[in-house]
Amino acid sequence: MDHTYRLVISCPDRVGIVARVSQFVAEQGGWLTEANYHADAESNWFFMRNEIRAESLKVSAERCRDAFAPIAAEYGMHWALVDSAVKRRVVILASHASHCLADILHRWHSGELDCDIPCVISNHENLRSMVEWHGIPFEYVAIDPDNKAPAHAKIMAMAQSYQADCVVLARYMQIIQPEFCQAYAGRMINIHHSFLPSFIGANPYQKAFDRGVKLIGATCHYVTERLDEGPIIEQDVIRVSHRHSKDDLVRLGKDVEKSVLARALRNHLEDRVLVHGNKTVVFD
Amino acid sequence: MDHTYRLVISCPDRVGIVARVSQFVAEQGGWLTEANYHADAESNWFFMRNEIRAESLKVSAERCRDAFAPIAAEYGMHWALVDSAVKRRVVILASHASHCLADILHRWHSGELDCDIPCVISNHENLRSMVEWHGIPFEYVAIDPDNKAPAHAKIMAMAQSYQADCVVLARYMQIIQPEFCQAYAGRMINIHHSFLPSFIGANPYQKAFDRGVKLIGATCHYVTERLDEGPIIEQDVIRVSHRHSKDDLVRLGKDVEKSVLARALRNHLEDRVLVHGNKTVVFD
Amino acid sequence: MDHTYRLVISCPDRVGIVARVSQFVAEQGGWLTEANYHADAESNWFFMRNEIRAESLKVSAERCRDAFAPIAAEYGMHWALVDSAVKRRVVILASHASHCLADILHRWHSGELDCDIPCVISNHENLRSMVEWHGIPFEYVAIDPDNKAPAHAKIMAMAQSYQADCVVLARYMQIIQPEFCQAYAGRMINIHHSFLPSFIGANPYQKAFDRGVKLIGATCHYVTERLDEGPIIEQDVIRVSHRHSKDDLVRLGKDVEKSVLARALRNHLEDRVLVHGNKTVVFD
Amino acid sequence: MDHTYRLVISCPDRVGIVARVSQFVAEQGGWLTEANYHADAESNWFFMRNEIRAESLKVSAERCRDAFAPIAAEYGMHWALVDSAVKRRVVILASHASHCLADILHRWHSGELDCDIPCVISNHENLRSMVEWHGIPFEYVAIDPDNKAPAHAKIMAMAQSYQADCVVLARYMQIIQPEFCQAYAGRMINIHHSFLPSFIGANPYQKAFDRGVKLIGATCHYVTERLDEGPIIEQDVIRVSHRHSKDDLVRLGKDVEKSVLARALRNHLEDRVLVHGNKTVVFD
Repeated sequence: MDHTYRLVISCPDRVGIVARVSQFVAEQGGWLTEANYHADAESNWFFMRNEIRAESLKVSAERCRDAFAPIAAEYGMHWALVDSAVKRRVVILASHASHCLADILHRWHSGELDCDIPCVISNHENLRSMVEWHGIPFEYVAIDPDNKAPAHAKIMAMAQSYQADCVVLARYMQIIQPEFCQAYAGRMINIHHSFLPSFIGANPYQKAFDRGVKLIGATCHYVTERLDEGPIIEQDVIRVSHRHSKDDLVRLGKDVEKSVLARALRNHLEDRVLVHGNKTVVFD
Repeated sequence: MDHTYRLVISCPDRVGIVARVSQFVAEQGGWLTEANYHADAESNWFFMRNEIRAESLKVSAERCRDAFAPIAAEYGMHWALVDSAVKRRVVILASHASHCLADILHRWHSGELDCDIPCVISNHENLRSMVEWHGIPFEYVAIDPDNKAPAHAKIMAMAQSYQADCVVLARYMQIIQPEFCQAYAGRMINIHHSFLPSFIGANPYQKAFDRGVKLIGATCHYVTERLDEGPIIEQDVIRVSHRHSKDDLVRLGKDVEKSVLARALRNHLEDRVLVHGNKTVVFD
Repeated sequence: MDHTYRLVISCPDRVGIVARVSQFVAEQGGWLTEANYHADAESNWFFMRNEIRAESLKVSAERCRDAFAPIAAEYGMHWALVDSAVKRRVVILASHASHCLADILHRWHSGELDCDIPCVISNHENLRSMVEWHGIPFEYVAIDPDNKAPAHAKIMAMAQSYQADCVVLARYMQIIQPEFCQAYAGRMINIHHSFLPSFIGANPYQKAFDRGVKLIGATCHYVTERLDEGPIIEQDVIRVSHRHSKDDLVRLGKDVEKSVLARALRNHLEDRVLVHGNKTVVFD
Repeated sequence: MDHTYRLVISCPDRVGIVARVSQFVAEQGGWLTEANYHADAESNWFFMRNEIRAESLKVSAERCRDAFAPIAAEYGMHWALVDSAVKRRVVILASHASHCLADILHRWHSGELDCDIPCVISNHENLRSMVEWHGIPFEYVAIDPDNKAPAHAKIMAMAQSYQADCVVLARYMQIIQPEFCQAYAGRMINIHHSFLPSFIGANPYQKAFDRGVKLIGATCHYVTERLDEGPIIEQDVIRVSHRHSKDDLVRLGKDVEKSVLARALRNHLEDRVLVHGNKTVVFD
């Protein structure tokens, strides 16, 4: 992967933002390899992602940030200048199901996913061997069904001690406590096994089977305190029919879940996902 | 289209049904051009559709029906032997939107849809010219918003006087009264502009836009007294993104609506859709 | 549709293009409603499309063009500043098949497609009534199979006399002569009934059937002198199986053809398609 | 998975086949859990797959076969009665790329794929650890680029000594010699990284990139002596655009390749794929 800096911005829309930002980039010698813009007419908000070839910049990223800060202040920007060479630390939480985890691990192992995975945390032991084969620490935290709070607190502390930049719930079947949601707002990604907002909550495949839908889906979203209601990053579906049992839906759904999660995670790691209210702008 | 008879059956499952039915078909000299079977493990119910080349039968359809009745009784079958040469009479109800109606009319006019369309009924006048160009009577029924019942009753009576075998709601924006639903149970088809069960009721595109979904859809279902909850015949989706306004969703959704309705209607007219409880078996 | 100006540019890539162009736009007071950029690493070419709210410009489009010309010259740009209020004149050529033509006409009639259609030209008479119902002149030009050149020349002259900005071949089954291709390079759109480059030339559905493919497709491309080898604008596919006869493929393919053509034409009319060599950049 | 017997048949079409076969099944007490039929009008050939609950049969599979043989002879049937409890032995050939192999191994390991994998054979060493972690023997066979025949012969002998029922080429980048093709006709499955018949042979992603297609695909087919021309089992595509480099196509294509291969292999192992000439009937 080429070394780049990503200048990601959102702010109230007005005339001249692109001109001001791209003039700044040009002044630093920045060669744009990719640039994306979106003006949201409804909220009058502006979104921007500039990918700049690292070696084209005349100054360091730090100097760039300092130079850009006044412009950002002038326009009321939320912004970041991200160095693609600094790998994000992605802590994965899993339960018993292996398909999403195996998929992420293989993408990471084969060099397709550009991040570090400092550890996998699970409330089951069954995936330990698979994780450790990849050279990744596996942390088992038993959850007492009658008193879940201590284990949940331990898991959150563990993610923080591993310095997670991002937390992925790879079919992790536990409710996330509010403080964990808040600590990782916009950085905690869940894969839900339905086409939201259909079939919120538990057993979505059973509900889909009972309703007789002709497509089933999966939804990747940022986790908020409201269950399955966070900003949607990516969704997809697969066709089913009367021939499929509920177990078939589960099996077919796995393939959708893992590909939706992989696409969403990739976009997140490349700073292509901008959250705005309860919606996302995805520059893919 | 070839002239065929369609022997469509559903009944409690047990050993020997296929043998008994196919032996009967063979005894009549019946040449199967297509045969479909489904055993629903959950409800222990059996579904079957046999398409028989008409000229291969040694006796008339009437005689066939008489001969099959005792077998049907023995197995407790719901069944029909349908003559493909007898065109179904499809009455279409429309409101202001033209896309679904125009699509159906063009398919019918170009010979793709095998049915008669005795009339189109609408509570708006704007589609009259298009309908009449196709040589189809257009019936306008004004609906008084403060007293809808008389108009609704008139529309139902009109559909019946045109001897409708099937009623299609082509983006007809009125609630159907219960007696109309009952009179056409399993024969009245609606296209809903969302991927049900998401966004039941009014303004689904606005709701989809507000939720920030990444796919929008359409659902074709048989109408029951419970709004948007009847047996689903067909669904499909199309990808959308942050770049799309609510009006874009409406526009993109039109294409999904019309293709979903066209597929569902075709399958209905070819007796490929069997209703079972609130679900469908679709032998496509 | 909102009134906008579209500043569409392609040129050799270098540092500072976005800055220069967006500074220019800002100087004119231009409010960007949409902006798209693409840097092609392989050919080192840069592509850009800016959509500017018309009422935000301080000066006329003509004055804007004059002011931009020196910048364009400096960067070696191919460029245009297009007024969205000036409707393009789209002349449609059709033969016997109605599905693509009916689809375009309905989209135009319902206000979805932003263009004028000054006439439809055909070598068959069967579509006259449908076209004329839309209030569009229908021109019939008989083609002598033993001496096609005079008719082809007449059709080209007719398109030009109707001042066509764009020519759409809506399943027009005649080879286009080289001078017609050249006169409308990048402005003549064909829909081919296969997933190119599979099944170039005649009878693609028969070829697809014989090969036993599991998906069939359609391809919309700009017409060049090399049959079915011009720059591809849009493609799509639909699933088929052993159950489908060759006639089924033809029928199913129609739906793909018309939706692919509609999407491509819409993008062309909105100046979202930039041709580069034998490929396209599509800012959709 | 339930224990079933699969009675799979193909033969010249005539009246009474379904009756005769289903009468036979009923006489043995056979409870059909699934039944599929296809009459190919073009070749006048008939295809049939009956899945029978094992415990419903009054006699052994062996006795069933003996009893069915005279019927099969009378109708000129190609047929098999397959016991679902006897796992097929699938030998996988791989080269350097890991994605298809990892996907198959995970499906097998998680119990989704019902077969034995006696070994993986490769002309590279890089995948050894991954294979062996699954408890599967990994056989490395070096191929001398200047004299490939001995290695190819060794690989074929190895597959046979492992008693392969089926050979899967999981992005195996070597030409298969004719005698290997013949020995495993209808039992050797390849995944080709293009939407065949587009881009036959080497470097399909480069060819797709150069042509500027808007969808890329993958094709799973039975291997014959004619390169990339065997009967197609399954195909799928994914959307691409001008934003994607050739390397992006390779990456995106991997996901299509592995899912297409997984679906095709599953259908093959469940005896759902019947080859007829150079085409397949897939009862999925």
